[in-house]
Amino acid sequence: MGKVAVGADNFLYPMPMVLVGANVGGKPNFLAVAFFSAIQMKPPVLAVSLNKIRYTNDGIKENKTFSVNIPSVELMEAVDYCGINSGKKVDKSGIFETFYGKLETAPMIKNCPVCMECRLIETADIVTDNIVFVGDVVETYTDDQYLTGGVLDLIKTNPFLFSVRDKKYISIGERIGGAWEAGKNYK
Amino acid sequence: MGKVAVGADNFLYPMPMVLVGANVGGKPNFLAVAFFSAIQMKPPVLAVSLNKIRYTNDGIKENKTFSVNIPSVELMEAVDYCGINSGKKVDKSGIFETFYGKLETAPMIKNCPVCMECRLIETADIVTDNIVFVGDVVETYTDDQYLTGGVLDLIKTNPFLFSVRDKKYISIGERIGGAWEAGKNYK
Repeated sequence: MGKVAVGADNFLYPMPMVLVGANVGGKPNFLAVAFFSAIQMKPPVLAVSLNKIRYTNDGIKENKTFSVNIPSVELMEAVDYCGINSGKKVDKSGIFETFYGKLETAPMIKNCPVCMECRLIETADIVTDNIVFVGDVVETYTDDQYLTGGVLDLIKTNPFLFSVRDKKYISIGERIGGAWEAGKNYK
Repeated sequence: MGKVAVGADNFLYPMPMVLVGANVGGKPNFLAVAFFSAIQMKPPVLAVSLNKIRYTNDGIKENKTFSVNIPSVELMEAVDYCGINSGKKVDKSGIFETFYGKLETAPMIKNCPVCMECRLIETADIVTDNIVFVGDVVETYTDDQYLTGGVLDLIKTNPFLFSVRDKKYISIGERIGGAWEAGKNYK
């Protein structure tokens, strides 16, 4: 097995697709985002990295709130539409049925299985082209149909992934093993 | 459809599982990590968020280099083992066949389909329990068998995901649509 160098590239993992929501000019706007990760467990904190040209940024800075919505496969066309079209040119406020939570200014999407309502705690200007928005999750919303025994069931929410190099969306598969368990008897 | 609040939670998306590599005390060490994301496209930059108690941290700070290795399903037991056991107690230098690239101090894993060699550019102390290490990807390595028409084929690399709430690893599924294409005719 000989490794080949393929040039510096960071897109070679399955990227979870989310929709970042913010009120811009008083109207809900949603951006398709794959640069997204939790960064702390308790209290729950997450980060999204948005290109500095994004329309969404002004809304996040103004309200100091945003949302991260996890769409299911059924919303793939709408998500892709939100990725292709900027809020600068297209009014995206009517695409989804939206709702607000305790922060009052972070628009969330009713037909996304999971919506995370976030308070902005830091704006990190680390790299040249993107801004990293870091948020405390203040509340998370779902629907009863996605719970199994009171616990959110990722398989039921049917999220999807982004494979950048071949420009494809990819579904998730099935449970293949237990975490903090599969490696107990390793070696 | 009425949303239910389930408490602040940020683990409700499919998290890509990676192994973060660093030399600690001159020896390769690998940590299973799910708090990981690219944060910029060009030049490629990525970030990993590690708990402040991690053994790996000292190595990253000392060498200012680290690696992000994307394991395939076949390595699930070994990855889980690297998540359960700290390098403080267990020598993980012999688990994988390792190699080094141009930075010379970022250990990478030969039998991971994708290895990203990173130079530390920032250590962000944003939250209480975790440190976010931000790295420039200086080179990426793969094997010919994972390329299709010269492009890395995510399906062939067979990575897997972490579903935290039910403590399961999940495989990826299949291509379900074109990115920057599926939404062209939306509405």
